[in-house]
Amino acid sequence: MHLLVLFGLLAKMVHSLSSPSSTTTTAAPSSTSACIKILYAGKSEQYPSYEKGLLQTFQEIGLPSNSQVELTDDISGMTQDEIDYIIYNPSSALQDFSPYTNVKAVLSLRAGVDQESNNPTLSRDIPLTRLVDPGLRQGMIEYVVGHVLRYHLNTDRSWQQNQQKDWISSDPPLARQCNVGILGLGELGGSCAEALLSLGFNVWGWSRTKKQKDGVQCCHGPGGLDQILQVSDILVLLLPNTPETQNLMFEKTFSKCKPGICIINAGRGNSIDDDDLLQALKDGIVAGATLDVFKEEPLPKEHPYWGHPNVLVTPHIAAKTRPETASKVLADNIRRSEMGEQMLYIVDRGTGY
Amino acid sequence: MHLLVLFGLLAKMVHSLSSPSSTTTTAAPSSTSACIKILYAGKSEQYPSYEKGLLQTFQEIGLPSNSQVELTDDISGMTQDEIDYIIYNPSSALQDFSPYTNVKAVLSLRAGVDQESNNPTLSRDIPLTRLVDPGLRQGMIEYVVGHVLRYHLNTDRSWQQNQQKDWISSDPPLARQCNVGILGLGELGGSCAEALLSLGFNVWGWSRTKKQKDGVQCCHGPGGLDQILQVSDILVLLLPNTPETQNLMFEKTFSKCKPGICIINAGRGNSIDDDDLLQALKDGIVAGATLDVFKEEPLPKEHPYWGHPNVLVTPHIAAKTRPETASKVLADNIRRSEMGEQMLYIVDRGTGY
Repeated sequence: MHLLVLFGLLAKMVHSLSSPSSTTTTAAPSSTSACIKILYAGKSEQYPSYEKGLLQTFQEIGLPSNSQVELTDDISGMTQDEIDYIIYNPSSALQDFSPYTNVKAVLSLRAGVDQESNNPTLSRDIPLTRLVDPGLRQGMIEYVVGHVLRYHLNTDRSWQQNQQKDWISSDPPLARQCNVGILGLGELGGSCAEALLSLGFNVWGWSRTKKQKDGVQCCHGPGGLDQILQVSDILVLLLPNTPETQNLMFEKTFSKCKPGICIINAGRGNSIDDDDLLQALKDGIVAGATLDVFKEEPLPKEHPYWGHPNVLVTPHIAAKTRPETASKVLADNIRRSEMGEQMLYIVDRGTGY
Repeated sequence: MHLLVLFGLLAKMVHSLSSPSSTTTTAAPSSTSACIKILYAGKSEQYPSYEKGLLQTFQEIGLPSNSQVELTDDISGMTQDEIDYIIYNPSSALQDFSPYTNVKAVLSLRAGVDQESNNPTLSRDIPLTRLVDPGLRQGMIEYVVGHVLRYHLNTDRSWQQNQQKDWISSDPPLARQCNVGILGLGELGGSCAEALLSLGFNVWGWSRTKKQKDGVQCCHGPGGLDQILQVSDILVLLLPNTPETQNLMFEKTFSKCKPGICIINAGRGNSIDDDDLLQALKDGIVAGATLDVFKEEPLPKEHPYWGHPNVLVTPHIAAKTRPETASKVLADNIRRSEMGEQMLYIVDRGTGY
């Protein structure tokens, strides 16, 4: 599919809405028509949604006047050295960025960009942006809050009692009596913390470097990790995939956890040593685990997580990008680049997030 | 257990904090010491918590100066016609209110007061208050939001897929694509609506008479009921027990529901015709039900809800009163009565709520 769109005039009419700096004529490029070439290297079944969302957003927010946009999902449909922007998912056929000699930025379709960041053919001089998608963030909040409440309400035990026809009344604890620890206080961790706070949970947050967040008991570094593991009734992992987070949760860190802790991993599969988690479940240190991300995906059929009574496997659905919201963010970031503004969500290639 | 407390002086020092009207000396009663006699007719195991909470709150908020409080949980420990207030749970031994000839008010320990309201020995001239407990409200929000998210996230199906070792990736819908209908827009229904709105759900609300609530698509009466049943993906029942709500959900109303609807009943067991719900589950009209309240409690061992694959039974835990928060509300309502202020949460004996 190949598409060429000219909308310089329309863009001129509306682009001042979201971009005050472009109201000065000096911000507009030369009067000859410029063509912005964008390659979509993502899942082909989602291309129609992105195509629609990107073009609609460009029309709404505007681009430098006289700009045209050329958008394609055909990796061989444009001359590689003419491509200005690549919208990218590492599961696509595009693995070698070296022919794209004039690319201005690579915009990842994912929140976690470890693969993109580690691709040696992608020059560190080119901005790589991760995706901060309001739809993805919203989906993550729903997933994390839903599973935190599942553990808090002890829903799995209710199902067991139903099989035994047991009416065992009790006074369930309130959220304010429950400590939820969040490892990773980035965009997603921070948003989940806010949602959990509004439901009354005691929220703790841990990050590599010192951070502050209203209402959250923040700690950081190795000492802070020990502290949050000791207090958390429910632990949510929302960490990026970096060398520092590799097997962060393993025998030694599990042994520091509050006994009976429940673990939710919606970040990256590398954060957990799987054998050690299975042992911690066996030993009763960990009462339950809800895992959305794995070192190998799809999770192999023979993996002991499948069918484990205290492990719920979900197929990497917590952080799904939604084309209708994501395309707006991508289009606006391309507009920023074209207008000479700082792009948002540029990845620090040193830390990888 | 029997307790007599004098704290006129202390009360005098602090009672102006929460009661501006009492700062005038004319609001204070005669200089002779008055004794307020309170009978606690609730669960005996909770009496120590209520005793502590009530006395502490009286000290904090104050009472008319020179008042003493006499508090007991011994039904025969005080002369019946001297009792001023009865804190009441209908599961207690006290069933006949007629000997309590001078009681000023009966304060229920429950949010749903159908039994109290229908007790013929409890004069309609005496204020009967239902309990609006922030702890109970918070617990209800946690229960409702948790089970709404469970249905929204399709957690039960995830467990099934885990047994089959099926990695079936999908793009789960966001909360804004999900209609949650709440039947009953009282204190609890309204609070649950707010929590669900803040998570992004489309919230619909139905009440017997017309109500308005920010952000909630409100409807009422029989026509409104048809409307909310047709749109709701998840239906939450938070209705009082009245003749009008008896078997509100039965064959005919189930047939009007959006196919695949999930039902959460955290209100009163009388709202559902159980045989018709089982049939609607069999027919696939209702995909799942989470039931916390039943016509007979504990739910009898032989009831087909037990062990039903699509029914989760919980043992009437959604609306548990928490003594530490409830005692504050009860103490303040007794203070109001003693100060000559209007008591809060007085039950309309006509409607029963």
